[in-house]
Amino acid sequence: MPVFLSTTDADFDAAFAAFLTAKRDEEADVGAVVAGIIADVARRGDRAVIELTARFDRLELTPETLAIPRAEIDAAIATVPPQERDALDLAAARIRAYHERQVPHDESWTDPSGATLGWRWTPVEAAGLYVPGGLASYPSSVLMNAIPAQVAGVERLVICAPTPGGQVNPLVLYAARTAGVESIYRIGGAQAVAALALGTETIAKVDKITGPGNAYVAEAKRQVFGRVGIDMIAGPSEILVIADRDNDPDWIAVDLLSQAEHDESAQSILITDDAGFGRAVAAAVEKRLETLERRAIAGASWRDHGAVIVTRDLEEAATLSDRIAPEHLELCVADADGLAARIRHAGAIFIGAWTPEAIGDYVGGPNHVLPTSRSARFSSGLSVLDFMKRTTLARMSPASLAAIGPAAETLAKSESLEAHGLSVRARLDRLNEGAA
Amino acid sequence: MPVFLSTTDADFDAAFAAFLTAKRDEEADVGAVVAGIIADVARRGDRAVIELTARFDRLELTPETLAIPRAEIDAAIATVPPQERDALDLAAARIRAYHERQVPHDESWTDPSGATLGWRWTPVEAAGLYVPGGLASYPSSVLMNAIPAQVAGVERLVICAPTPGGQVNPLVLYAARTAGVESIYRIGGAQAVAALALGTETIAKVDKITGPGNAYVAEAKRQVFGRVGIDMIAGPSEILVIADRDNDPDWIAVDLLSQAEHDESAQSILITDDAGFGRAVAAAVEKRLETLERRAIAGASWRDHGAVIVTRDLEEAATLSDRIAPEHLELCVADADGLAARIRHAGAIFIGAWTPEAIGDYVGGPNHVLPTSRSARFSSGLSVLDFMKRTTLARMSPASLAAIGPAAETLAKSESLEAHGLSVRARLDRLNEGAA
Repeated sequence: MPVFLSTTDADFDAAFAAFLTAKRDEEADVGAVVAGIIADVARRGDRAVIELTARFDRLELTPETLAIPRAEIDAAIATVPPQERDALDLAAARIRAYHERQVPHDESWTDPSGATLGWRWTPVEAAGLYVPGGLASYPSSVLMNAIPAQVAGVERLVICAPTPGGQVNPLVLYAARTAGVESIYRIGGAQAVAALALGTETIAKVDKITGPGNAYVAEAKRQVFGRVGIDMIAGPSEILVIADRDNDPDWIAVDLLSQAEHDESAQSILITDDAGFGRAVAAAVEKRLETLERRAIAGASWRDHGAVIVTRDLEEAATLSDRIAPEHLELCVADADGLAARIRHAGAIFIGAWTPEAIGDYVGGPNHVLPTSRSARFSSGLSVLDFMKRTTLARMSPASLAAIGPAAETLAKSESLEAHGLSVRARLDRLNEGAA
Repeated sequence: MPVFLSTTDADFDAAFAAFLTAKRDEEADVGAVVAGIIADVARRGDRAVIELTARFDRLELTPETLAIPRAEIDAAIATVPPQERDALDLAAARIRAYHERQVPHDESWTDPSGATLGWRWTPVEAAGLYVPGGLASYPSSVLMNAIPAQVAGVERLVICAPTPGGQVNPLVLYAARTAGVESIYRIGGAQAVAALALGTETIAKVDKITGPGNAYVAEAKRQVFGRVGIDMIAGPSEILVIADRDNDPDWIAVDLLSQAEHDESAQSILITDDAGFGRAVAAAVEKRLETLERRAIAGASWRDHGAVIVTRDLEEAATLSDRIAPEHLELCVADADGLAARIRHAGAIFIGAWTPEAIGDYVGGPNHVLPTSRSARFSSGLSVLDFMKRTTLARMSPASLAAIGPAAETLAKSESLEAHGLSVRARLDRLNEGAA
């Protein structure tokens, strides 16, 4: 049974704290294994990648077949049904339109001292997207990772996608082509991350690696962080729905299950100000679970990690939500906009009962790569900014250097960095000569 | 002697590639030690922090004296000379003015389908700044870390600064107070990072940790990344100066030395299109080294890691610069603005010969916490954005759900995620009932 809590329970605080800190995924100790794989790829390049792929994915590759050949991609794409193609085109267009608004502006201004200051944004040159594998690979995730990179202006975009046994999802290939991906390497795991970060004879190294993966992929991203940029370390997914009694319990039930069906470690939480409504939703979940295709997974997630929390009012619901800092937050209440404005920590908010979270997974426009495991306290979903970097600019005039240079000299002296001060002094002396 | 290369050398490409990949700092294998320290702090809290501080910093603390008492801060600040105070005030005002322009804007719009989309930025609640230790601690770095957090709206800002033997730099304390820092804990190393990330009885945990440190601090940040946000893994600092012959060799020499004096692992590089000018700068460096206070450090850095690279023209200089992706780039050429516009990868650009890099370390306005070790290829200097996160917003109208919902259903089906589709279908069915 899922957790059922009420803020009027005598032990609510302790129970909620325990709920918050409960671990949902095994933390496998894979650090040494991953370090070994990275060192092997560094040393042996393609050969290491090919051997590891044969071992883990039962797939025999050569340097020539590491990337899926163009003809094979063309043939697979030709099999995509028109309805799926149209749906993916609609999703791509909407995701692109949303992300184009994220492109940041350069700034330049001259301050009262005469110094010209500003900054300039530029894209990273090359990005590698990790797409988790096989039949379970998600075309939508290809769009969500690749389109922000494309909008940012990344020149070279590649994908690594493990294809155990050689299976490739045609719609993944179509999504990759739609989003301007240059090459798709059929490799996965820590060896794929290592190849992207370090490069091999066949795979050119990239500057940024994004996309979710299993514990080995996550650990590999952590270990190569610094040599390349990474997006985040993704944990199991979660949804929090805040709903009042004026909702159809079945709508809320399927929303909760749409998260639960992802993974047994996924978490679905309902917070409501009406205990009767909470029980009705729980009953509706059980009813839907009777027939749901992925009932084994969704049922395990709901039983082991699900929760219904009853609060005195919606203000209390918002406070609890901020402590959870959910990846996805659905607000199905009368004043959903007002409640949204009150929320401080959430990856994405879905406002009003006509906005099921699944819309955001596919066609809403915002990114579905979002901070999990309470990391919305300090991080954001994937965006165009993840594929750009900012260079700060400063230009002193002689007058501005004369105005602010002496303060720099004073601070350099206090930090015992003489040459810092001398680099300012050499110029100030020239100015003084000119004035004399 | 520093490396002296010319792009017309027959073996230039190989020599430059070797120069690019040469390691400047020891990569100590501190992973296991750091993991042990983090586990110890997780288990024993204050007691672990206090014991480790006694062992590494020779400083006996109690839970009550972990934070520097207010009276001690007041007394230390009272000893700061007025000139230093004024210089720091000027620096703080200029850094604040620059960073206030970085505060991002929220967006909201309604698209043609009737969907309201947008995003909202909010600050992280609490941030911890690591300030490397003792007498070598830099007041300027306190400003550069704390002011962006303060401008972002972070509610609780704390500092961890090791104080071996109990020494505290009064100007560091003044900088901390100027930038709104609430508490200064006199602890350092991996134990300080662990305390900030996990919390102890006395030290409340934070959401984001920034600031440079030694190999143990860097590894601790890497290990707690995900539980909290971190800024970056900082490596040794570097400067690249591109200068033509119309410069005073001595100005360029002190600019190169202002980086070299930081650290024996620091790197100073001159690229020039005039070999004679390159030799003149190298001679000026030697001359300045005869008298420089920190000549032992600066001389070792210059001999071991310094370089003079002669190019055919400035276009070639810009190309090499992008391959180096320098932390600091000084452009001392006739058309410095034009060359700046041509550069793609750099943490900060200092434009024109009147803009020595040291200005940017203190009073220019831009941040001096910048991407090192070629990471300007994919990352940016510290900014207000590092202390904020973005929540995406979506609100469907019934009409917009009717317009785009079927595409979401199609994609959910193709990904075998039935409940995703059902969450859309339940609502579309209601609309159809209403229409019938």
